Amino acid sequence: MPASKEQITDFFTKDFPQTKCQIISVGNGTALVTHPVGHEELRPGGTVSGPTMMALADVALYAAILGEIGIVPLTVTTSFNINFLKRPQPANSIRAESRLLKLGKTLVVGEVNIFSGDDPMPVAHATGTYSIPPQK
Amino acid sequence: MPASKEQITDFFTKDFPQTKCQIISVGNGTALVTHPVGHEELRPGGTVSGPTMMALADVALYAAILGEIGIVPLTVTTSFNINFLKRPQPANSIRAESRLLKLGKTLVVGEVNIFSGDDPMPVAHATGTYSIPPQK
Amino acid sequence: MPASKEQITDFFTKDFPQTKCQIISVGNGTALVTHPVGHEELRPGGTVSGPTMMALADVALYAAILGEIGIVPLTVTTSFNINFLKRPQPANSIRAESRLLKLGKTLVVGEVNIFSGDDPMPVAHATGTYSIPPQK
Amino acid sequence: MPASKEQITDFFTKDFPQTKCQIISVGNGTALVTHPVGHEELRPGGTVSGPTMMALADVALYAAILGEIGIVPLTVTTSFNINFLKRPQPANSIRAESRLLKLGKTLVVGEVNIFSGDDPMPVAHATGTYSIPPQK
Repeated sequence: MPASKEQITDFFTKDFPQTKCQIISVGNGTALVTHPVGHEELRPGGTVSGPTMMALADVALYAAILGEIGIVPLTVTTSFNINFLKRPQPANSIRAESRLLKLGKTLVVGEVNIFSGDDPMPVAHATGTYSIPPQK
Repeated sequence: MPASKEQITDFFTKDFPQTKCQIISVGNGTALVTHPVGHEELRPGGTVSGPTMMALADVALYAAILGEIGIVPLTVTTSFNINFLKRPQPANSIRAESRLLKLGKTLVVGEVNIFSGDDPMPVAHATGTYSIPPQK
Repeated sequence: MPASKEQITDFFTKDFPQTKCQIISVGNGTALVTHPVGHEELRPGGTVSGPTMMALADVALYAAILGEIGIVPLTVTTSFNINFLKRPQPANSIRAESRLLKLGKTLVVGEVNIFSGDDPMPVAHATGTYSIPPQK
Repeated sequence: MPASKEQITDFFTKDFPQTKCQIISVGNGTALVTHPVGHEELRPGGTVSGPTMMALADVALYAAILGEIGIVPLTVTTSFNINFLKRPQPANSIRAESRLLKLGKTLVVGEVNIFSGDDPMPVAHATGTYSIPPQK
């Protein structure tokens, strides 16, 4: 049974209290998630740090999965690949649009584009594979 | 001209004040970097969060590069791939051992193994590609 | 100056005579490329072999790049990542739809979806990074 | 029950008759596999083609897995990542040294270094994830 945006937000608030990601929408194998950009996220030259974008991409894929299979906390990332494409604009929050490419019984694969400001071209693109534990 | 462990630590302290990574050693195209594991790094089930391991792997590769080319702050990650292999032990810090596979004039590629406790098998393995800006 | 589908096909015929890929269309940072599936491409269980799909994805990205920058033979793949999503149908040819995500002066990044028969879901998804040699 | 080098070679000869790979040794979660380099494997500029190296890396990982779990033909690649590091020497065969990083019940992860001639630095580095079907 799929989880709603509210259920997923509650789950993240409780289990990942340190994340600053905000889930905007979830459904149909997709999710839209934003992350503020402040001093902590910036690195030399005004670039958003790579790990900030990786964490956002991972949350956006995780949210899209929970939106399909429900709150299954032991779902884990098994592999993750990201390409950094261009420098995000430091004054803006970044947002991730994820989309599942495969929803198997035990393996899920999805892709994410990360955008900055009103630039229509992504600043990063990632793919991730997740393992769903066997359900009883 | 290569940077020493002290120079790289100073650079991270100033430019990435939020990181908890500690550089243990740098040299010969390698680096050894540790990261403490506490409440913030754990996720449901007592697993170290994926983004924590990604950030550690990225720092370990970055340190190995600076150890060869010196403090070149505009060096950026262009692509990054990680496989999560097994669950780290929650009571232990994690450590990353990075090694450069290619040190070109504009592109550097390296790999990282992440270990937990005294387990000889890695808990994660990553590869990353970095772009070095043209030097004047 | 961009290369046309005919120029790219000529280039592949001359320089990669062993490839069975057929370029259907090229333009706007995209390419559509097909590959027949016969005895040589199949492996146990009637699956199209992984290397066949990797080669097709690589050609589809290469074609999209030449369609933008022209015939630059020394353009080379620097990294490549592929996720195999589902089993292709053995009776059908496979086709790849590539799309560039970044077209820089020295680095190009693109993604590819591979489809089989009339299934709207991809059987594989790949991303690749290519290095363009400095032009005089 | 593990498979021997001879059993794996027989399996490849029967089920992948088109491959030119030769398995030199298998055991302890590793494999050493070579591939001749001739006209078919070369591309413009005398470089060994990317797909040739991808196919070799895939076979080397597959051989290392069968060397541990025996001949399980439905074992399939689920994801594959490769970094091309330097130009192989066109006059030489290439060889791949694979090593398993994780041997789980359903997922196996390994890495491969590809070498050319007597150069001690790899010309390519790859990682792959494989799915083992449930055994009865």
